[in-house]
Amino acid sequence: MIVDQAIYRDGIREPCGDLSDALEALRTGQDPHAFLWIGLKDPTDAEFDLVNDELKLHPLAVEDAVKGNQRPKVELYDNTIFVVLKTLRYVEATSDVETGEVMLFVGDRFVVTVRYGDASPLATVRQRLEGMPQQLRHGEVSVLHAVMDAIVDNYVAIDAELQNDLEEIEAAVFSGARDTDSGQIYRLKREVLEFRRAANPLAAPLSMLHDGSRSPVSVKEMRLLFRDVADHLLRVIDHVESYDRLLTDVLNAHLAQISVQQNSDMRKISAWVAIAAVPTMIAGIYGMNFDNMPELRWSYGYHVVLGVMAVACLGLYRAFRRSDWL
Amino acid sequence: MIVDQAIYRDGIREPCGDLSDALEALRTGQDPHAFLWIGLKDPTDAEFDLVNDELKLHPLAVEDAVKGNQRPKVELYDNTIFVVLKTLRYVEATSDVETGEVMLFVGDRFVVTVRYGDASPLATVRQRLEGMPQQLRHGEVSVLHAVMDAIVDNYVAIDAELQNDLEEIEAAVFSGARDTDSGQIYRLKREVLEFRRAANPLAAPLSMLHDGSRSPVSVKEMRLLFRDVADHLLRVIDHVESYDRLLTDVLNAHLAQISVQQNSDMRKISAWVAIAAVPTMIAGIYGMNFDNMPELRWSYGYHVVLGVMAVACLGLYRAFRRSDWL
Amino acid sequence: MIVDQAIYRDGIREPCGDLSDALEALRTGQDPHAFLWIGLKDPTDAEFDLVNDELKLHPLAVEDAVKGNQRPKVELYDNTIFVVLKTLRYVEATSDVETGEVMLFVGDRFVVTVRYGDASPLATVRQRLEGMPQQLRHGEVSVLHAVMDAIVDNYVAIDAELQNDLEEIEAAVFSGARDTDSGQIYRLKREVLEFRRAANPLAAPLSMLHDGSRSPVSVKEMRLLFRDVADHLLRVIDHVESYDRLLTDVLNAHLAQISVQQNSDMRKISAWVAIAAVPTMIAGIYGMNFDNMPELRWSYGYHVVLGVMAVACLGLYRAFRRSDWL
Amino acid sequence: MIVDQAIYRDGIREPCGDLSDALEALRTGQDPHAFLWIGLKDPTDAEFDLVNDELKLHPLAVEDAVKGNQRPKVELYDNTIFVVLKTLRYVEATSDVETGEVMLFVGDRFVVTVRYGDASPLATVRQRLEGMPQQLRHGEVSVLHAVMDAIVDNYVAIDAELQNDLEEIEAAVFSGARDTDSGQIYRLKREVLEFRRAANPLAAPLSMLHDGSRSPVSVKEMRLLFRDVADHLLRVIDHVESYDRLLTDVLNAHLAQISVQQNSDMRKISAWVAIAAVPTMIAGIYGMNFDNMPELRWSYGYHVVLGVMAVACLGLYRAFRRSDWL
Amino acid sequence: MIVDQAIYRDGIREPCGDLSDALEALRTGQDPHAFLWIGLKDPTDAEFDLVNDELKLHPLAVEDAVKGNQRPKVELYDNTIFVVLKTLRYVEATSDVETGEVMLFVGDRFVVTVRYGDASPLATVRQRLEGMPQQLRHGEVSVLHAVMDAIVDNYVAIDAELQNDLEEIEAAVFSGARDTDSGQIYRLKREVLEFRRAANPLAAPLSMLHDGSRSPVSVKEMRLLFRDVADHLLRVIDHVESYDRLLTDVLNAHLAQISVQQNSDMRKISAWVAIAAVPTMIAGIYGMNFDNMPELRWSYGYHVVLGVMAVACLGLYRAFRRSDWL
Ligand SMILES: [Mg+2]
Ligand SMILES: [Mg+2]
Ligand SMILES: [Mg+2]
Ligand SMILES: [Mg+2]
Ligand SMILES: [Mg+2]
Ligand SMILES: [Mg+2]
Ligand SMILES: [Mg+2]
Ligand SMILES: [Mg+2]
Ligand SMILES: [Mg+2]
Ligand SMILES: [Mg+2]
Ligand SMILES: [Mg+2]
Ligand SMILES: [Mg+2]
Ligand SMILES: [Mg+2]
Ligand SMILES: [Mg+2]
Ligand SMILES: [Mg+2]
Ligand SMILES: [Mg+2]
Ligand SMILES: [Mg+2]
Ligand SMILES: [Mg+2]
Ligand SMILES: [Mg+2]
Ligand SMILES: [Mg+2]
Ligand SMILES: [Mg+2]
Ligand SMILES: [Mg+2]
Ligand SMILES: [Mg+2]
Ligand SMILES: [Mg+2]
Ligand SMILES: [Mg+2]
Ligand SMILES: [Mg+2]
Ligand SMILES: [Mg+2]
Ligand SMILES: [Mg+2]
Ligand SMILES: [Mg+2]
Ligand SMILES: [Mg+2]
Ligand SMILES: [Mg+2]
Repeated sequence: MIVDQAIYRDGIREPCGDLSDALEALRTGQDPHAFLWIGLKDPTDAEFDLVNDELKLHPLAVEDAVKGNQRPKVELYDNTIFVVLKTLRYVEATSDVETGEVMLFVGDRFVVTVRYGDASPLATVRQRLEGMPQQLRHGEVSVLHAVMDAIVDNYVAIDAELQNDLEEIEAAVFSGARDTDSGQIYRLKREVLEFRRAANPLAAPLSMLHDGSRSPVSVKEMRLLFRDVADHLLRVIDHVESYDRLLTDVLNAHLAQISVQQNSDMRKISAWVAIAAVPTMIAGIYGMNFDNMPELRWSYGYHVVLGVMAVACLGLYRAFRRSDWL
Repeated sequence: MIVDQAIYRDGIREPCGDLSDALEALRTGQDPHAFLWIGLKDPTDAEFDLVNDELKLHPLAVEDAVKGNQRPKVELYDNTIFVVLKTLRYVEATSDVETGEVMLFVGDRFVVTVRYGDASPLATVRQRLEGMPQQLRHGEVSVLHAVMDAIVDNYVAIDAELQNDLEEIEAAVFSGARDTDSGQIYRLKREVLEFRRAANPLAAPLSMLHDGSRSPVSVKEMRLLFRDVADHLLRVIDHVESYDRLLTDVLNAHLAQISVQQNSDMRKISAWVAIAAVPTMIAGIYGMNFDNMPELRWSYGYHVVLGVMAVACLGLYRAFRRSDWL
Repeated sequence: MIVDQAIYRDGIREPCGDLSDALEALRTGQDPHAFLWIGLKDPTDAEFDLVNDELKLHPLAVEDAVKGNQRPKVELYDNTIFVVLKTLRYVEATSDVETGEVMLFVGDRFVVTVRYGDASPLATVRQRLEGMPQQLRHGEVSVLHAVMDAIVDNYVAIDAELQNDLEEIEAAVFSGARDTDSGQIYRLKREVLEFRRAANPLAAPLSMLHDGSRSPVSVKEMRLLFRDVADHLLRVIDHVESYDRLLTDVLNAHLAQISVQQNSDMRKISAWVAIAAVPTMIAGIYGMNFDNMPELRWSYGYHVVLGVMAVACLGLYRAFRRSDWL
Repeated sequence: MIVDQAIYRDGIREPCGDLSDALEALRTGQDPHAFLWIGLKDPTDAEFDLVNDELKLHPLAVEDAVKGNQRPKVELYDNTIFVVLKTLRYVEATSDVETGEVMLFVGDRFVVTVRYGDASPLATVRQRLEGMPQQLRHGEVSVLHAVMDAIVDNYVAIDAELQNDLEEIEAAVFSGARDTDSGQIYRLKREVLEFRRAANPLAAPLSMLHDGSRSPVSVKEMRLLFRDVADHLLRVIDHVESYDRLLTDVLNAHLAQISVQQNSDMRKISAWVAIAAVPTMIAGIYGMNFDNMPELRWSYGYHVVLGVMAVACLGLYRAFRRSDWL
Repeated sequence: MIVDQAIYRDGIREPCGDLSDALEALRTGQDPHAFLWIGLKDPTDAEFDLVNDELKLHPLAVEDAVKGNQRPKVELYDNTIFVVLKTLRYVEATSDVETGEVMLFVGDRFVVTVRYGDASPLATVRQRLEGMPQQLRHGEVSVLHAVMDAIVDNYVAIDAELQNDLEEIEAAVFSGARDTDSGQIYRLKREVLEFRRAANPLAAPLSMLHDGSRSPVSVKEMRLLFRDVADHLLRVIDHVESYDRLLTDVLNAHLAQISVQQNSDMRKISAWVAIAAVPTMIAGIYGMNFDNMPELRWSYGYHVVLGVMAVACLGLYRAFRRSDWL
């Protein structure tokens, strides 16, 4: 579906009629920074072909865009930059990170943005960018920057969510609470790896976009903007690397702690059994049937033995208490 | 065994008679992109010599092709590219990844493909490629691309299978099911490493094939096609790296969980023994043979004691329940 | 808040009136190394704008400076170096490392330092630098060096604190003391990673500052000073890497030791129960009600059996002692 | 000891009289590829000096050759290549990898090979090479290649042995057999690391030998032969890396499994004790001495209670069976 | 303290009077390789200033030399090379590696060596070097080489000691001896990391010293000597890396083994308790007070029951033996 399409001349939005005519006009026009922006959402092959007929995109890029599920990357074709970005969405209820996809074709006087799923923030990006004509005046590349910036800013937000989740888990594990479950820690680790798969591959191509000697971006000011995005990305990558390391330790500590708690329970039970064994033993002795057992004849033999049992149990109890076994 | 041999001129298949004559004709002919494609399967030394007599392949490449069991690689000889690829096959029944081998000699006006084992998809590749004359028109290199593309696409499929297996194992481990076995986790790890040994070494030579400054592929359009293959390969490598990390954690978590389950059993047994210890102790006391034990003379002493025992056991039972020990 | 602002001419502090006039005078003046140093603390947007109006800083650098919470970095803009540094503070009571932030704009005849939080040592830096006119004579860059040097020297001090903490934990864990807690080890690991996030990203840009061929610092003597700072930083990074590795081992050893101690307790309890089981068994035998049990009729049967029980218990006790189970 | 020495002219062996004369003749002779090959075995300093007096080897290389126990390396001196190689030998009985050493001096018209220990395969190399005159015709470097090729081929063989050992251990561990011992796993890991220390450092200098721009080998055909050796080496290194990773997992799995088996035993014992506790408790109750215990007076009270005990034990036994505890 | 100072002309030691005059004479003298060697030990600031007044060392290098506790490094100043080296000493009694420090200033016609602590072997180095005039003739750099060579040779010796310690620990752990303690393994790991911190950072600058294109050492022969030192260093680094990996495994195996041994003890105790539970249960049954218990009236009932108990216990004992539980 084509969700929006417009021409941006001198930073100002203009309606766009027939694609073919519009492009022709732009290319023969005076303003080198005027361009056409087409926004697609979950395009069918037919819809895509319609656009492609005019823009003559490279078949390999088109194939990737239609099939989706690509690796984050920036690919240079003859006069088109093809960019695949992973959008992330954090589902609070399940602490799940969901991955979506946004693709861009940045060509001669046109930008095509393609988004899959609802997670992607492209609508807001267009809106915000239309409020910044000075940015739009830089031409097609300004859209690329705006999209990347929005997506990476979103990574920063999700980074904060994951840090939150990690801190909650840390608190639970090291407070000794008994209801943490190891699946939860593992799942966070999975989400962290999912995050990492979205963010890490972007670092190299982003640095290519802002590095003067290799960049396809000719305006220096725009390159600085890409460096700014790259910088935010690196921060996120640093964090995620930490989370991964910490989660391994938290998982190990948690698994060990369950074991420790269980052993602690066992020790407690065993200690009680040991206490009970003493009166049982004494009672057994006075349950023997020897003819000559003087204590049995004492008037208060029974009471004395009960007392001995009580004292022995209490003594054991206090000894175990002192050793922290009970 | 020579499974197929044909000449492709202007993208169209033509029969091929005597090898020597055909090659001569191609080399003196007009069409610089016409070429001969010979397909071998498990060739004997004699069969290979027959082909080699005409094509004058480099002895080191021949040695590798005849001995098989090589590392994935792209080697440049004077006017031949020698490529070794690992084909993978997933055996659903055993979740086993099996490794096969395909080799290519891409030379002046000829391509030789050699496959070992049945896993390799070369027949389908030729068929599909014959349906795309516009690709074949690019000459010998189009076969190299088609084979690599088919093999890497197959990696993508197997990647999905392994992800499936990993998810099944995760589900089993974290659901606490008692019938997972650690051998299964370990075996998946082995298959992941087998996958990795097939896929990872290919990344560097593939990137060489599509990097303009180092590539032996002169047609730019073809280099873009190799970049596409490389891109898919990188995606697979990313995934496999994640699986490896996750499997280590799953294995540890699983081993720890078995231990936790066993400890849990022990705690339960001990708790029951502890409960039984209480009436045993009380019974022991009233089994003592003191002359003066007033309770023994009471009419309902026995019943009272039975009641006390029952209450004690029940109390313990409920306490253990509350602590989640039973 | 503007905490201080002054002109440094020939290494000597001079008061600074109107910003705009001062800058104009400096730029048209004779001394190429005279410069203006403005110190900001937790600046509001308005305060920052005031300064920015005169200095024309790059909006992206300004954005970072106003938002704070950036990655440590050195960014080159047209004629300004923008530097973000993480300051660290060690809280003895909790062994916590706290991260603050200092930013610098080093431009044509001016330096702006921005600090967030109270941890940052900028006041002392200015004071110390004003006592070293020969340094100040090198111009704006001398301030950058002084700030970096102070911050990295502070890293060295905190490195020593962390090493201390590690050694305390090692001593506690390997002395077998029972009151270490795994949360403490984990928290130290967190602080080590926090340290690492502050220190590691600085290594690459610092090496750029002192590497003749890439450095924006033109005075060779100043580059040597930056190399000195880089050298100290590398030392700290080496150490922190060691701590991280060691803490993983300490954590594992600690978790294993808790388990070992608990198992040791269990063994002790079980050994006592085993000892008690022997007299209980013997007593049980003589508590049987057979008509014909000759020992029951012996005059001293009871005493003999008591002796046998005592000997058995003592024997077991000594055997367990010898096996180190008690 | 000088084990063999000969001149190779045009690929054909000729006897070699006085060293000094022979070298003189070769150097002033017409054939640029004729050379002298001296083979030493465990040379004494005196024997080495004898050779060195004529060949003027570099003292540092000589020192290494005489002291032995060096790192695998390829060192270029003015007109000599000095190569240190580690030979490996697999001792089937103990699954031990033993490391030997071979050194080569490849100079102007001469090759000196030095071997330590009996493991080294130099005699066979000379024999085989003498059967390939077309190789020998390439001059001194052909000996270097032949030796490296033989040693690396031997690595491939030992790689297979180690893979075998790993597979045996995997089978033993995951079959749950109780007689694996962790020392065995650890020892294999040690041998794998020993292998790695022999093979890994060779990769960089070997790649230097076959890389056209850096190689001291001028004949292109020879460089291809070195590339072939390098390729086999890389395959071996890949495998060994896998073994190392897998062995860590196997060791952990094994250690965990022992613990699991022991816990399983404990559970079984405890379950039996729990079963025995029930009749003991019941017997205790009917061993009490209350005057009024109606059951005691029943004619078949005893038999009923015995029945109850049997039923209780059987019930417990079956419950434990069902839980897989017995 | 100045421990020694002398002039070396043409490899021969000459006494050195006034520093300032001596240096003047050397610099205006004919022999470009004559130089002054000053040896300092734990110098005070004053002593250092005395030397520095003449030699005009760079303040940053001086600061490092006076403060000590630096990272191993090679720093180039205008016409001075400043080198920091870590000396190591192995304390047999405690298996402790102790780190000392040696610094060198290699300038125009002078060398200053500074050592801290007693571990450093500088005295021997001077002695040995004075016996090798042909080395000393190469000028100041020969001292740098001699010191580095001595220190790295010492690393090789300590490497052997650590290997020894590792082997002892391996033997202890895998023999199942019960008196290994995990602190010992951990401490060896610490020493290995201490070694690593001394050796690893030296690799890069050493390779710079012998790499023709970057080296400040102009004599090629001397560069080869530095390559020799670098080679030995790399060998040591390889080993230390292995030790680190192996120690992690040994520590894990050891911790697991303690747990296994304890579990084994528990199983033994429990087995004995289980054996004792059987006669206790039987005795309980015949201690019941039922009126009608025929066995009690049998003449040899008691003896039969004793026999049954003995047989039951023996049977259990042998079953447990067979299962290897006792
Ligand atoms: Mg998910
Ligand atoms: Mg997710
Ligand atoms: Mg942003
Ligand atoms: Mg959350
Ligand atoms: Mg920013
Ligand atoms: Mg921004
Ligand atoms: Mg398999
Ligand atoms: Mg397989
Ligand atoms: Mg494909
Ligand atoms: Mg499956
Ligand atoms: Mg694609
Ligand atoms: Mg494709
Ligand atoms: Mg346990
Ligand atoms: Mg904190
Ligand atoms: Mg902190
Ligand atoms: Mg400093
Ligand atoms: Mg502290
Ligand atoms: Mg310094
Ligand atoms: Mg300093
Ligand atoms: Mg061995
Ligand atoms: Mg060995
Ligand atoms: Mg070979
Ligand atoms: Mg074997
Ligand atoms: Mg080969
Ligand atoms: Mg070969
Ligand atoms: Mg030490
Ligand atoms: Mg040496
Ligand atoms: Mg020792
Ligand atoms: Mg050497
Ligand atoms: Mg030496
Ligand atoms: Mg246990």
